[in-house]
Amino acid sequence: MGSRGLDNVVNLEDMRLWARRRLPGVVFDVIDGGATDELTLRANRSAFDQVWFRPRALAPVDVRTTQTSVLRQTVALPVMLAPCGFARLVHPDPERAAARAAAQAGTIYVVPDPPSSSAEEVARAAPSSLWYQLYLPRVRRDAVEKLARVQAAGYETLCVTVDTPVRPMRERDVRNKVKIPLRPSIRLAAAGLSRPRWAKEFLFGRVGGAGVRPYQSLRAYKDLEAVLMKLYPVTRGDLEWLRTEWPGRLVVKGILRAEECEALTALGVDGVVVSNHGGRNLDGVRPTIDVLPEVVEAVNGLAEVFLDSGVRRGADVVKALALGAQACLIGRPYMFGLATAGEAGVSHVLEILKDEIDRTMAQLGCASVAEIDQTMIFRRG
Amino acid sequence: MGSRGLDNVVNLEDMRLWARRRLPGVVFDVIDGGATDELTLRANRSAFDQVWFRPRALAPVDVRTTQTSVLRQTVALPVMLAPCGFARLVHPDPERAAARAAAQAGTIYVVPDPPSSSAEEVARAAPSSLWYQLYLPRVRRDAVEKLARVQAAGYETLCVTVDTPVRPMRERDVRNKVKIPLRPSIRLAAAGLSRPRWAKEFLFGRVGGAGVRPYQSLRAYKDLEAVLMKLYPVTRGDLEWLRTEWPGRLVVKGILRAEECEALTALGVDGVVVSNHGGRNLDGVRPTIDVLPEVVEAVNGLAEVFLDSGVRRGADVVKALALGAQACLIGRPYMFGLATAGEAGVSHVLEILKDEIDRTMAQLGCASVAEIDQTMIFRRG
Amino acid sequence: MGSRGLDNVVNLEDMRLWARRRLPGVVFDVIDGGATDELTLRANRSAFDQVWFRPRALAPVDVRTTQTSVLRQTVALPVMLAPCGFARLVHPDPERAAARAAAQAGTIYVVPDPPSSSAEEVARAAPSSLWYQLYLPRVRRDAVEKLARVQAAGYETLCVTVDTPVRPMRERDVRNKVKIPLRPSIRLAAAGLSRPRWAKEFLFGRVGGAGVRPYQSLRAYKDLEAVLMKLYPVTRGDLEWLRTEWPGRLVVKGILRAEECEALTALGVDGVVVSNHGGRNLDGVRPTIDVLPEVVEAVNGLAEVFLDSGVRRGADVVKALALGAQACLIGRPYMFGLATAGEAGVSHVLEILKDEIDRTMAQLGCASVAEIDQTMIFRRG
Amino acid sequence: MGSRGLDNVVNLEDMRLWARRRLPGVVFDVIDGGATDELTLRANRSAFDQVWFRPRALAPVDVRTTQTSVLRQTVALPVMLAPCGFARLVHPDPERAAARAAAQAGTIYVVPDPPSSSAEEVARAAPSSLWYQLYLPRVRRDAVEKLARVQAAGYETLCVTVDTPVRPMRERDVRNKVKIPLRPSIRLAAAGLSRPRWAKEFLFGRVGGAGVRPYQSLRAYKDLEAVLMKLYPVTRGDLEWLRTEWPGRLVVKGILRAEECEALTALGVDGVVVSNHGGRNLDGVRPTIDVLPEVVEAVNGLAEVFLDSGVRRGADVVKALALGAQACLIGRPYMFGLATAGEAGVSHVLEILKDEIDRTMAQLGCASVAEIDQTMIFRRG
Repeated sequence: MGSRGLDNVVNLEDMRLWARRRLPGVVFDVIDGGATDELTLRANRSAFDQVWFRPRALAPVDVRTTQTSVLRQTVALPVMLAPCGFARLVHPDPERAAARAAAQAGTIYVVPDPPSSSAEEVARAAPSSLWYQLYLPRVRRDAVEKLARVQAAGYETLCVTVDTPVRPMRERDVRNKVKIPLRPSIRLAAAGLSRPRWAKEFLFGRVGGAGVRPYQSLRAYKDLEAVLMKLYPVTRGDLEWLRTEWPGRLVVKGILRAEECEALTALGVDGVVVSNHGGRNLDGVRPTIDVLPEVVEAVNGLAEVFLDSGVRRGADVVKALALGAQACLIGRPYMFGLATAGEAGVSHVLEILKDEIDRTMAQLGCASVAEIDQTMIFRRG
Repeated sequence: MGSRGLDNVVNLEDMRLWARRRLPGVVFDVIDGGATDELTLRANRSAFDQVWFRPRALAPVDVRTTQTSVLRQTVALPVMLAPCGFARLVHPDPERAAARAAAQAGTIYVVPDPPSSSAEEVARAAPSSLWYQLYLPRVRRDAVEKLARVQAAGYETLCVTVDTPVRPMRERDVRNKVKIPLRPSIRLAAAGLSRPRWAKEFLFGRVGGAGVRPYQSLRAYKDLEAVLMKLYPVTRGDLEWLRTEWPGRLVVKGILRAEECEALTALGVDGVVVSNHGGRNLDGVRPTIDVLPEVVEAVNGLAEVFLDSGVRRGADVVKALALGAQACLIGRPYMFGLATAGEAGVSHVLEILKDEIDRTMAQLGCASVAEIDQTMIFRRG
Repeated sequence: MGSRGLDNVVNLEDMRLWARRRLPGVVFDVIDGGATDELTLRANRSAFDQVWFRPRALAPVDVRTTQTSVLRQTVALPVMLAPCGFARLVHPDPERAAARAAAQAGTIYVVPDPPSSSAEEVARAAPSSLWYQLYLPRVRRDAVEKLARVQAAGYETLCVTVDTPVRPMRERDVRNKVKIPLRPSIRLAAAGLSRPRWAKEFLFGRVGGAGVRPYQSLRAYKDLEAVLMKLYPVTRGDLEWLRTEWPGRLVVKGILRAEECEALTALGVDGVVVSNHGGRNLDGVRPTIDVLPEVVEAVNGLAEVFLDSGVRRGADVVKALALGAQACLIGRPYMFGLATAGEAGVSHVLEILKDEIDRTMAQLGCASVAEIDQTMIFRRG
Repeated sequence: MGSRGLDNVVNLEDMRLWARRRLPGVVFDVIDGGATDELTLRANRSAFDQVWFRPRALAPVDVRTTQTSVLRQTVALPVMLAPCGFARLVHPDPERAAARAAAQAGTIYVVPDPPSSSAEEVARAAPSSLWYQLYLPRVRRDAVEKLARVQAAGYETLCVTVDTPVRPMRERDVRNKVKIPLRPSIRLAAAGLSRPRWAKEFLFGRVGGAGVRPYQSLRAYKDLEAVLMKLYPVTRGDLEWLRTEWPGRLVVKGILRAEECEALTALGVDGVVVSNHGGRNLDGVRPTIDVLPEVVEAVNGLAEVFLDSGVRRGADVVKALALGAQACLIGRPYMFGLATAGEAGVSHVLEILKDEIDRTMAQLGCASVAEIDQTMIFRRG
């Protein structure tokens, strides 16, 4: 993949459009699509546009920093890379590329469960800036084994996804006859023929640190399939068990209302991600930026609150921070970066966001993220 | 009719689009259209989209059921088939097909008055899962006779429609020069020639259990015409009389505000259907999902409250339940199912809805319909 | 003009579209257009669509009437014909045609000042169902003379327009190079050539009761011009004077807020027309249906309140009545009726509205206009 | 440039469209564009359309005046010309043309810092009706020097811009590869070839009072570049220093919320401009007409409040006045006037606005700007 085209990527939507040209349509839709009517997918964006800025004039913002911390770790900007399950579709070695780009940008990458190569290989790529996302195995013995393996690989923070009790309905995929995990099919072969560069990388791309392993992607998908097939509703009891078993920091991803928060903080959860899975799971769920304030209030400072789903601009990040988020996560944008320019694409996405956050802070009169408070925004009603 | 195409029907809108290809335009419009400017027709849909979900995380929803009850009868899902008067336009033997599909799905079909065959023939098709819809005859003697016949046929629940005091103005039909009941015309002949399969079924299709009776549809329409020509405003007095005469359960369809509810429950009505007749009668009427809460409050648990008009997604059903409905009814979607694949089409519609309701419940953290309460939704203002 | 095409005119928008085909574009725009950006023109319509119906079920509406009264005179429906200044552009003898159609329909026509023929000739056409609209002459002597003439012609009710202190800016007309009053121009000649039937009627049409008077339209326009050129701000002082001078009933047209109402009723005004001149005078003025409630409250029953601007459906009329109007006036719709089918066109417009009002009342459970109260509607916020 | 086409310029949008035809696309975009997604650019317009008029009827508005005062200086209309930095792109001698047009119209022009010619030359063109806009030099010595020069040139009022702490991100320019200040490039050369008249004026146009100085525009841009390159966040401390140093009147431009206002009035600031820089600096900032009331309240009469950003109609000006502004400023519209017809274009823009303000006042029943109070408008919520 080439990074020359990056010069023309002015914002994250450009990256998406570029990826749309590079990827087979069915693959692009796997990444880009949302649940059923995609109401939430669209609302995630429009909700940000209904939060307005109230800039503070005459503030001393000559020296500014976008630096902040997440779970007491310093990050260079309040943006992390969210775990994305289908990355192998768009890049031969996605997790290690993303890990390196995140480390390079001074932020955190949440490694999806399972990564295309292995938890260990990804960990070696960028040891200090990774969290591990977990679909908690249903069988306790499997869970214990997995936790031990993750811990042994060096991960200190676990991000457990709790918003996918069943396989979601994404109608684009159904219409595209895409079965995830991807299986050989005439339609896919046709897609590959129309995008030979993508096909070559998909089939023969080198995964992980080892040598060329053709068709390895198929093995990687077998692992992913094993996880997806076993999706089940994680309960509060499961979480209690996990909190006992896992010695590191624990983040719960997929909270969308206040009612569950007290139990989470009582449990000793370190972080909560307000997420609607990018509008990919249940259509009609409220946009996360609208839900954020009630979660922040309910968590009451006893854990850090993060937000994802629909973040496409530095301004979105600043709005979330003003409403109480500690940081945001992005998913699709860096996936599109991987699809177009690999690691350099991810880096470019993070650079754009950092620059946009910095400009927004300057214009708002905020020299540090600590100064981004509620008075910076206005929302009707 | 073939059911092969059902594989491509992912949601209820697909069914509509398929029916639009299969039916003559004027016939499609009879089913699809609404009153005058179709403001209510559109608002019925957009109002659902303004009710947002608040999913409960970490709930034990491993085992779920969409089962519930209507008027103390168990149904496999909180969706019933509404009475639709023009079904003979799209299928040769519609009521018996719908009755079988409803029974098969474990739910209730409200037989329209009059059905294309006869109340008795439909009743024999699926005895235990039918209600009978009634346009109460104006002349008491006719009414007594009809009630006796309905009762003798085995119907235990009567659903009396009270929202059609006059023939409504549907401008699509006027522009299409469609007179309902349908009469032979050049335009209709042209429509038939362009859709010969439809024309053959319409003219020669077998109605009811008896042998082939060509042109029987014309007789069926004569009956329907007799009813439609006698439409008049059913009053509270009529309803009191009906309640005295009819020994079974009584449901009143077409209530749109709180003021009338106390009188209805005082009368001993068993159920109330919040309905704007699918936006087909008075344009500018509020969407039913907006009206539902005030009716639920006014009925105050003394009758069951049902909702129709605009239900197209399992999520819509769940939203109605969260706002207090006992179940929903669908009309056009199963009519389109009849038009495309007959009984199998209706079954497919019910299967889609059941699957969507189940997924929505899983994502919301509700293992049973009893758990779908008001905290599951959010509406602005 | 032919009335055959009336069969295809299902609603008032159809009439507009027909008129658009028949009239030269520049003439259509004179009638159809609004002030500057036409914000109010559009808002007049959309505001009606934001008033929703709450039908009363089970009401005895078997026998219904749209009859009501305006200023103690019985009218067959709560719709009057508003005064429209440029009617001679679309019909050779517009005021007498409108007067006859109004009388025929059992309602009132407000004759514009000055009519194309003469106040006297119009009065003779339909003596009992006319009001006379007045642009009060600035010079008292002229005013006295005019009032005497109007009174002598038999008019008992005067409707004085107070919302046109200056010539309004209608950008369609400016772009069309239309000077009102219309003067011979190349562009107009071209328009005439493209619509020869219109041109013939415009130039040679017979005005009033006398014989053919070619080019008489030009004289008619000279009179209109004289009035338009003298437009000035009518003040409360002028109105006090008028109230003293005019012995008949007095209606003030063009009130848009509560503040002025008390003074008007103190003065002994009989009626107030909430009007923004069809969105033709000041762009950005609130829609009349939004303003109506505050005027009704301020007038406090001491005068009758009427409404115009944007009424296109019987449902609109019913909404206005529910919010306290005694009746509505329509302008453009009957002008388009004149343009297409003359008197028959106006009659058709009134028939459509009457039918729509009747159906709406039936569906709302209102047997008479007196039953159309505030509980029949719902508006957000 | 010719002023013949002005006859077809009915409103300010016409002027924009004409300029779009005359200017190279990249130059038009420099003037027309806004920050990032241009949300604020669009909201600036739509927010005005959500303020509705409530006209007062029967007011004596026969004699009207749009005259008012700004900082105790009489102006013929409540509209000033805002400082615009890139004027040299559209006109060879823009500031002197604008100054003359403003003086001719009886209003004030805020000369941008630095003008294409020199502060002194512009001052000589129209001595009594100019303010000087300042990007306060960061180095105090430079600032002292500049203030002395401005004062010596005769400017009595300084308008210091405080809303541009960093170079803003305007994606149209980035995509157009426009570097501001403009440098020779192939793309620019191509633009020039396609618009030779523009190119000739840009390259050889005479700037200021001296003779023809080819390529002088490049020098002018060097000066502008020097200022833009030194953009930095002006702080309250800087403003205190400026207030001490500058003996004349001081206006602060770029205030968007109440919190800063008390400090400004305590400092002795004479005027505050509610401005979001025409939506060009930070996207997502609230529209100025929405922000105006809180600033007016906070300033509490201790300074005059002005408004810019999105003013395109006389009605917009009247709305701002009703909400407490003393006057408005326009930017892009007069830039487009310069681009099309030079000084005559600017004059035409001001004439249109004056006429629109006058008509609006007449229709509202306001004989003077003092009568434009809050009762004249309505806004939802």
